[in-house]
Amino acid sequence: MTSASAEHQIPPQVQLVRTYFMSLQDQICSALEALDGTAQFSREELPGEQGALARPRVLADGSHIEKAAVQFTHSIGASLPPAATKRNPHLAGHGFQATAISLIVHPRNPMVPTTHMNLRYFHVDTPEPFWYFGGGFDLTPYYGFNEDCVHWHEVAQAAAGPQYPAFKQACDDYFYIPHRQEQRGIGGLFFDDWREGGFDSSLTLTKAVGDAFLPAYQPIFERRAVLDYTQSQREFQLYRRGRYVEFNLVHDRGTQYGLQSGRRVESVLASLPPLVAWHYCPEFEPGSPEDNLLTEYLAPKDWVACG
Amino acid sequence: MTSASAEHQIPPQVQLVRTYFMSLQDQICSALEALDGTAQFSREELPGEQGALARPRVLADGSHIEKAAVQFTHSIGASLPPAATKRNPHLAGHGFQATAISLIVHPRNPMVPTTHMNLRYFHVDTPEPFWYFGGGFDLTPYYGFNEDCVHWHEVAQAAAGPQYPAFKQACDDYFYIPHRQEQRGIGGLFFDDWREGGFDSSLTLTKAVGDAFLPAYQPIFERRAVLDYTQSQREFQLYRRGRYVEFNLVHDRGTQYGLQSGRRVESVLASLPPLVAWHYCPEFEPGSPEDNLLTEYLAPKDWVACG
Repeated sequence: MTSASAEHQIPPQVQLVRTYFMSLQDQICSALEALDGTAQFSREELPGEQGALARPRVLADGSHIEKAAVQFTHSIGASLPPAATKRNPHLAGHGFQATAISLIVHPRNPMVPTTHMNLRYFHVDTPEPFWYFGGGFDLTPYYGFNEDCVHWHEVAQAAAGPQYPAFKQACDDYFYIPHRQEQRGIGGLFFDDWREGGFDSSLTLTKAVGDAFLPAYQPIFERRAVLDYTQSQREFQLYRRGRYVEFNLVHDRGTQYGLQSGRRVESVLASLPPLVAWHYCPEFEPGSPEDNLLTEYLAPKDWVACG
Repeated sequence: MTSASAEHQIPPQVQLVRTYFMSLQDQICSALEALDGTAQFSREELPGEQGALARPRVLADGSHIEKAAVQFTHSIGASLPPAATKRNPHLAGHGFQATAISLIVHPRNPMVPTTHMNLRYFHVDTPEPFWYFGGGFDLTPYYGFNEDCVHWHEVAQAAAGPQYPAFKQACDDYFYIPHRQEQRGIGGLFFDDWREGGFDSSLTLTKAVGDAFLPAYQPIFERRAVLDYTQSQREFQLYRRGRYVEFNLVHDRGTQYGLQSGRRVESVLASLPPLVAWHYCPEFEPGSPEDNLLTEYLAPKDWVACG
């Protein structure tokens, strides 16, 4: 908790979102610890000026989770730089606040997909506040299972409601690796600059997405973490994790912004996999599960219709 | 060899440089195979239009070399895009040729440093040809040895002669990882846009750098590859390799250009280490060899004066 003196400087909208993100972080960390069974998240509280707060949490070397990072941040800036507001030059110079929850899970078993979720709220304290929400979640399997992809997208559809087709399309568009001409994963939801219907309605939608993450991921994790796997399947996972690194370091706007803005580098790069392999020109037998990942799973499709 | 009909389209300067780069590639590949003792480079010849040629060569999973890539390329473009010639707008639309040799060695033993070398020549076929050389080599140790750093820089100094101080400084400036506030390695030589003294003189300097690579690296490799190492030292190497990935994917101009220009991605990313680890907030005992790497070795210094 922040002190009463600091708290009064936080606009009520930011306070509402922040409270939700912190409680979601707690809930997701507890659920991931239960899924792992042995490892615990590191828990730090890094307070900033005027009530700002970062709560980086990382779980490493668990029984089932090789690495997970679930980060909460609330940052406060005295004056928005002109470069940050090209589309809205009247905001330059005003104080701003940003709060976000961002997570990634790198499971040990290659049968369990990697997942990523991010929710964020940006607020400029002009007389008529300027604000927007953004976020989403996406799934990156190493070995494809139709029922997992269908379940993932069914939960996403239920959370996003009428926005599902647009958010799914935005997710496929965003998580694309141009230099590989590949999708990063099987997608999910992605939205940005979201203000539709006003603050309450936008917060409700953001909460629906956040609350859907565990129901989407948990059953997949439970089904796949108990499967046996071979060393060669493990090596395929390490190899495919390279794509994750390439996307995050070369293309991901959040990572680029984090590195350029001088944010705490260990937090920005906590998303990187614990162990990664790069092979030169690997070949996979046509029709093999490794080959099918690209041809059958990573090509964007209407997964809900496959159910 | 290219056919006679294609060869006459290659300007004599390009032909001279190309012949040197191809022979240097052969020499370095043979020397690295001898150092490894068991593994061989894959050897491909990928001819392009009008005599262009790529010779990607990768050695993987050797006894002492976990991965090495030694690439020769000669590319020919019909018309220089305006974006490529902001500093020299009169070159836009003219045909251009670029030839380069680029190498990286990722040894298995963490006592052996990783190394990188690149030499390149760019030529625009205007009536008065526009051209420049660039390149250099640098060393990235995981465990520091003073005599290795001194030797590396003594050979670099002998190769670059009076240019050594400027080339060393340029190398320290280029191989810096801003988001880590760390150097990538102990430096070496770096030069770009080089035309000083005319073509013959510039080629002589470029050859001096290229010819110095093996005398600089080979003795270090031989001294360190026979040392024992522990699993924990191996893990430190995998962890530090993460910095290499971060530099190459986030900052390296050659990699960025290669990815954006749609060059063969397996060649562009052949420089990435075979196995890499990311740990969250690792701590190293003050005064330990792992801690010393940053404080004693990666801080730029006048290594020749330490000899």
